[in-house]
Amino acid sequence: MTTENTLRDDGRRADEGRPVQVIRHFTKHAQGSVLMNIGQTRVLCTAMVEEKVPPFLRGQGKGWVTAEYEMLPSSTDSRKSRDRNRGKIDGRTVEIQRLIGRSLRSVVDLDALGERTIWIDCDVLQADGGTRTTSITGAYIALCDAVNSLLDEGIIADNPITGQVAATSVGVWNGTPILDLCYAEDSHAEVDMNVVMTDDGRIIEIQGTGEARPFTKDEFSQLMTLAEKGIAALIAEQNAALLETL
Amino acid sequence: MTTENTLRDDGRRADEGRPVQVIRHFTKHAQGSVLMNIGQTRVLCTAMVEEKVPPFLRGQGKGWVTAEYEMLPSSTDSRKSRDRNRGKIDGRTVEIQRLIGRSLRSVVDLDALGERTIWIDCDVLQADGGTRTTSITGAYIALCDAVNSLLDEGIIADNPITGQVAATSVGVWNGTPILDLCYAEDSHAEVDMNVVMTDDGRIIEIQGTGEARPFTKDEFSQLMTLAEKGIAALIAEQNAALLETL
Amino acid sequence: MTTENTLRDDGRRADEGRPVQVIRHFTKHAQGSVLMNIGQTRVLCTAMVEEKVPPFLRGQGKGWVTAEYEMLPSSTDSRKSRDRNRGKIDGRTVEIQRLIGRSLRSVVDLDALGERTIWIDCDVLQADGGTRTTSITGAYIALCDAVNSLLDEGIIADNPITGQVAATSVGVWNGTPILDLCYAEDSHAEVDMNVVMTDDGRIIEIQGTGEARPFTKDEFSQLMTLAEKGIAALIAEQNAALLETL
Amino acid sequence: MTTENTLRDDGRRADEGRPVQVIRHFTKHAQGSVLMNIGQTRVLCTAMVEEKVPPFLRGQGKGWVTAEYEMLPSSTDSRKSRDRNRGKIDGRTVEIQRLIGRSLRSVVDLDALGERTIWIDCDVLQADGGTRTTSITGAYIALCDAVNSLLDEGIIADNPITGQVAATSVGVWNGTPILDLCYAEDSHAEVDMNVVMTDDGRIIEIQGTGEARPFTKDEFSQLMTLAEKGIAALIAEQNAALLETL
Amino acid sequence: MTTENTLRDDGRRADEGRPVQVIRHFTKHAQGSVLMNIGQTRVLCTAMVEEKVPPFLRGQGKGWVTAEYEMLPSSTDSRKSRDRNRGKIDGRTVEIQRLIGRSLRSVVDLDALGERTIWIDCDVLQADGGTRTTSITGAYIALCDAVNSLLDEGIIADNPITGQVAATSVGVWNGTPILDLCYAEDSHAEVDMNVVMTDDGRIIEIQGTGEARPFTKDEFSQLMTLAEKGIAALIAEQNAALLETL
Amino acid sequence: MTTENTLRDDGRRADEGRPVQVIRHFTKHAQGSVLMNIGQTRVLCTAMVEEKVPPFLRGQGKGWVTAEYEMLPSSTDSRKSRDRNRGKIDGRTVEIQRLIGRSLRSVVDLDALGERTIWIDCDVLQADGGTRTTSITGAYIALCDAVNSLLDEGIIADNPITGQVAATSVGVWNGTPILDLCYAEDSHAEVDMNVVMTDDGRIIEIQGTGEARPFTKDEFSQLMTLAEKGIAALIAEQNAALLETL
Repeated sequence: MTTENTLRDDGRRADEGRPVQVIRHFTKHAQGSVLMNIGQTRVLCTAMVEEKVPPFLRGQGKGWVTAEYEMLPSSTDSRKSRDRNRGKIDGRTVEIQRLIGRSLRSVVDLDALGERTIWIDCDVLQADGGTRTTSITGAYIALCDAVNSLLDEGIIADNPITGQVAATSVGVWNGTPILDLCYAEDSHAEVDMNVVMTDDGRIIEIQGTGEARPFTKDEFSQLMTLAEKGIAALIAEQNAALLETL
Repeated sequence: MTTENTLRDDGRRADEGRPVQVIRHFTKHAQGSVLMNIGQTRVLCTAMVEEKVPPFLRGQGKGWVTAEYEMLPSSTDSRKSRDRNRGKIDGRTVEIQRLIGRSLRSVVDLDALGERTIWIDCDVLQADGGTRTTSITGAYIALCDAVNSLLDEGIIADNPITGQVAATSVGVWNGTPILDLCYAEDSHAEVDMNVVMTDDGRIIEIQGTGEARPFTKDEFSQLMTLAEKGIAALIAEQNAALLETL
Repeated sequence: MTTENTLRDDGRRADEGRPVQVIRHFTKHAQGSVLMNIGQTRVLCTAMVEEKVPPFLRGQGKGWVTAEYEMLPSSTDSRKSRDRNRGKIDGRTVEIQRLIGRSLRSVVDLDALGERTIWIDCDVLQADGGTRTTSITGAYIALCDAVNSLLDEGIIADNPITGQVAATSVGVWNGTPILDLCYAEDSHAEVDMNVVMTDDGRIIEIQGTGEARPFTKDEFSQLMTLAEKGIAALIAEQNAALLETL
Repeated sequence: MTTENTLRDDGRRADEGRPVQVIRHFTKHAQGSVLMNIGQTRVLCTAMVEEKVPPFLRGQGKGWVTAEYEMLPSSTDSRKSRDRNRGKIDGRTVEIQRLIGRSLRSVVDLDALGERTIWIDCDVLQADGGTRTTSITGAYIALCDAVNSLLDEGIIADNPITGQVAATSVGVWNGTPILDLCYAEDSHAEVDMNVVMTDDGRIIEIQGTGEARPFTKDEFSQLMTLAEKGIAALIAEQNAALLETL
Repeated sequence: MTTENTLRDDGRRADEGRPVQVIRHFTKHAQGSVLMNIGQTRVLCTAMVEEKVPPFLRGQGKGWVTAEYEMLPSSTDSRKSRDRNRGKIDGRTVEIQRLIGRSLRSVVDLDALGERTIWIDCDVLQADGGTRTTSITGAYIALCDAVNSLLDEGIIADNPITGQVAATSVGVWNGTPILDLCYAEDSHAEVDMNVVMTDDGRIIEIQGTGEARPFTKDEFSQLMTLAEKGIAALIAEQNAALLETL
Repeated sequence: MTTENTLRDDGRRADEGRPVQVIRHFTKHAQGSVLMNIGQTRVLCTAMVEEKVPPFLRGQGKGWVTAEYEMLPSSTDSRKSRDRNRGKIDGRTVEIQRLIGRSLRSVVDLDALGERTIWIDCDVLQADGGTRTTSITGAYIALCDAVNSLLDEGIIADNPITGQVAATSVGVWNGTPILDLCYAEDSHAEVDMNVVMTDDGRIIEIQGTGEARPFTKDEFSQLMTLAEKGIAALIAEQNAALLETL
């Protein structure tokens, strides 16, 4: 065991992700409803179908996939005030839900979906770092369940899902590149990067920030390698969960 | 088995409540965190302590208990838009969270609590009727857990909880007074009443509405008898849950 | 004269309501416009007809009755800030205007009204307790005037009003159940209850709250008896006012 | 009688104002409360004292006078939606309440008032043209009553009111300059001008608009002459009302 | 040189306006785009055509001209917070943009414009007094450029512009009536007046305020004479700018 | 000249940025005021010093740098509605101003700045792609000017700027990686990436999105090479501009 492998407070190696638990059909009203647990982060990811599209798409025969993200007030260590009480949505929330929406749209053929919207809701029940990447990874499963229900009911004939998507966070912490940061790590990371990839290893989105200092291209390369490894494992978890008969 | 006992669609007798399941410590950040399941209605009730009080109470040595209520977009059959997007809180939501707050304050000695706030958050994960009464009943347990944590940590010396509170809904449906309405019943009820009571059978709040028609004093009496029975059972469930060691 | 009959600060007996003065046609633009004075509480209750309905009712041939309530800034002892300046409507206001709307809808056949809305506006010019019950009682008269104007103009053929409605407040104050609380009484009441009833003694709405402590079923019965007496007197005042030719 | 004198629909001469009725002490909570009726326009003008000033004046020993204006929904022929429901204040309302505030501040010595605010509220109960000028004229009386109450209670030693102010509207209608336009005239006026003056004939504010066409300096002169005449009459009405003992 | 002519801090005579610089086609997307510099005040005035009208005009074949005004945060000496962050538009801003809109509409035949809107945007890049009058004066030029582009493209056949409009501020400062106040003068003026006139000397709008004290009719006359002189010069500047070939 | 070098509509080679023009001291009130022109994109970048910090930093002796971004309504081809009118800030705007703020904070020692805020305002006068990267690049110059003014006035002793920052956009367009996309290119790009770097070639922020399709690591490498080249040129332009004496 190398030094690198012993440094994390929860005993993980630098390149080790947290345990994943997927609970499908967690609630009954949404066509897709997944309680996605990665480590201590727990996000309820749902996908609901609405038989209409936003005004800018009406009459074009195309569908839409959009996402909303919110943290429950009790999901964080000190209570988080509800956005509705401040009359505006938190900037970080806006960024995250736009990222989730773009990520899922990148694997859906909106023409094949037909003139309907799939609403992705990611409500964080418990936060411990990586809520946006957990949301994307869980939302993909909820999306599959919702699409399968459309196929089963004969509402659409062909599967509009064109690829598989998962996401993880990587960062530089105490000088070392690590995979899948928990909150304690994330809040002291020097560099923080979220990566969204497909099952064939292509990139959908990269968002990297030098929180405490700029970072080098070499560090960037190491982070990408970690992200690829982590995402491959999450893709496998998604596939395992989707194989379960319920 | 009488006719009255066979009429409900889910097989319940008129005076029969739904199954109750209490999961304490459902999430880790809040001092009290209860997933309260009554039938298919599932509400995450949390209690979090904040070491300050609202401006109108500052410097008086008194505490405060306040509640917020929200339904997740995926909690209902057709997706419910988030309040934050409409820039104002739904009238029904305002009514409900004020009711929850008043109900819990009625069993707390705010002087004994000291200058701190207990935030009650009731987030409905899945709705099937009775979300406000489920919220009150679950929030009482979360409140006990939060207060016990204050006592355990020596932050307060004496228990400020002065009574026990639970709530249920009753109504007239197809001409028959029934207990604990599920959504299908509630949406067709002629009369709808929510009752909040203490463990010694006193009334904290009554809100009765003739949805489809005015109702008689006789009907009102029958509804009160049902409510008393239902609340007694919920009080017992609360006590059982609070006895579990976790 | 018993002790009970002498205790109120304004000289009233426990079961005595305040003087009522009804001024119909107080303003000229609304079809119904009533300045309703109960004691020192003065509410301008108007009913205006709009020839359209909210989106959820369009095309169904049904009408709608809805209410808005507001206190003028100068209506209270210390100036009340306007809701519009805070960008959101006060929770208490939301509760009250929903109550007024439900109460009046309960005596209107919305099918017979036809596809139009009757807007009830209750603007409190001077507050001294019981503004919500004064609003309901006055609004009923304004509603009758508005409906009569629709009938007179031949816009509707049959009277859609199916019953008569009035409301009062009752409460426990210094240990004694009393009728029609003024502000000084209301702000120190132990129990506070608003009751809306029809002319045939049926209940439309009950909202009872143990402000300072839970209350017993026996207290509840006494309060209901007071409310019935008070509402019967208000029904008589409404009828007298509606008989006046103007 | 000249042609000019016979042209107005309500029988008034071109230079004739509408009847004025002043009801002081219309409501009881505000120190000054005036129901100001000019023709069919009825505005409740109140003045309330608050023992603090806005942040920008704190600690300077100076007072403040500010105004708010609102039309009740039932004050106009077709119901006017409340500003609070649209989440923003109507542009016209903003203009009017700024005008009322400036006009009254121009006759108050803010240093002599001391570090307190007088809130002027002008709530239009019934609108028939000239609501802003009626508001200013009535608010002056309410202001006097509020200041007298401060003097009577010994809260201030010297009267901070330094002048008398009243306002009227003038306009060009069917080619003729006329005084004190009612709504029917105002909505078809070619030129519309509001004038605020002191009792010694000096100008506090002029707001003149060529609604339908630019206007000449000669027309302007004629309008000013009408306004001076009308305001002199209103000053007399104010004085008469303030002489009444109540 | 008289005393009157020497008193201003920037060396101007009482009746002397500031230097004017007009830069047409300052930006490329708007059909009319004018950087209007009067002294140190710099306003970007644009006119953009939109092929639809607001709801209240739809289907009438008439056009609309409307204006928006905003000061950049960096346009003032101490940074001005953006309106969007406070969730409401500043009262002064509302007044100004309504004034700009009315002024320009007064010289446009809305029927001849056809069912389209011309949006006037006046964004203040640098403020030094007179931003509203600079906006009107510059917006007229932008409006001409936008209308000419409609004529050139054959979208409309006849020029809907029926007159020429410019505006200036005048005021009483240190007891002397002066023309075209800079910020230092404006913030200490006793009387402040904005005048909007046509090229033939008729009045479109007058807004005069006795900031520090009421003013006499004689002062008013002197101010009007100054305004006429100043506006005549601005009309000449507009004409010169519009003659330039670009 | 290769095929790759001839394909862009404006005649640029794939690796060629647009012409840069920097106008310092464009307006007079802000300590730093830069009109930054990159191609047809023109952004007014200002830096203003405020002698206080946000609540979360008070009393710590540390400073703050924050940014706001807005597009003028006339900056785009079809008029962009102002955020203030919709009562909320556009999600894209939120993302951009957070990015600008983070980028500039990464080169400022907030302890050395002392307890004051530098407000960066980036107002887009004319948009033609790359407005966020143009904002960052121009804002760095404005920041230098503002900091120099603090140093010149002796308000701070040591320069808190610890590095130099510039940004550019790169993307894949028609299958070819290109540098510094104009709007026409950006709106059809398959992959879009914004890169913020320091003068020593380290990365501050990367945001890459597969707009039309996921992208490969090889494409990513080519884009990074283009970005490095473009940013090196912008760093040189910044240095040249800062050397000018004004």
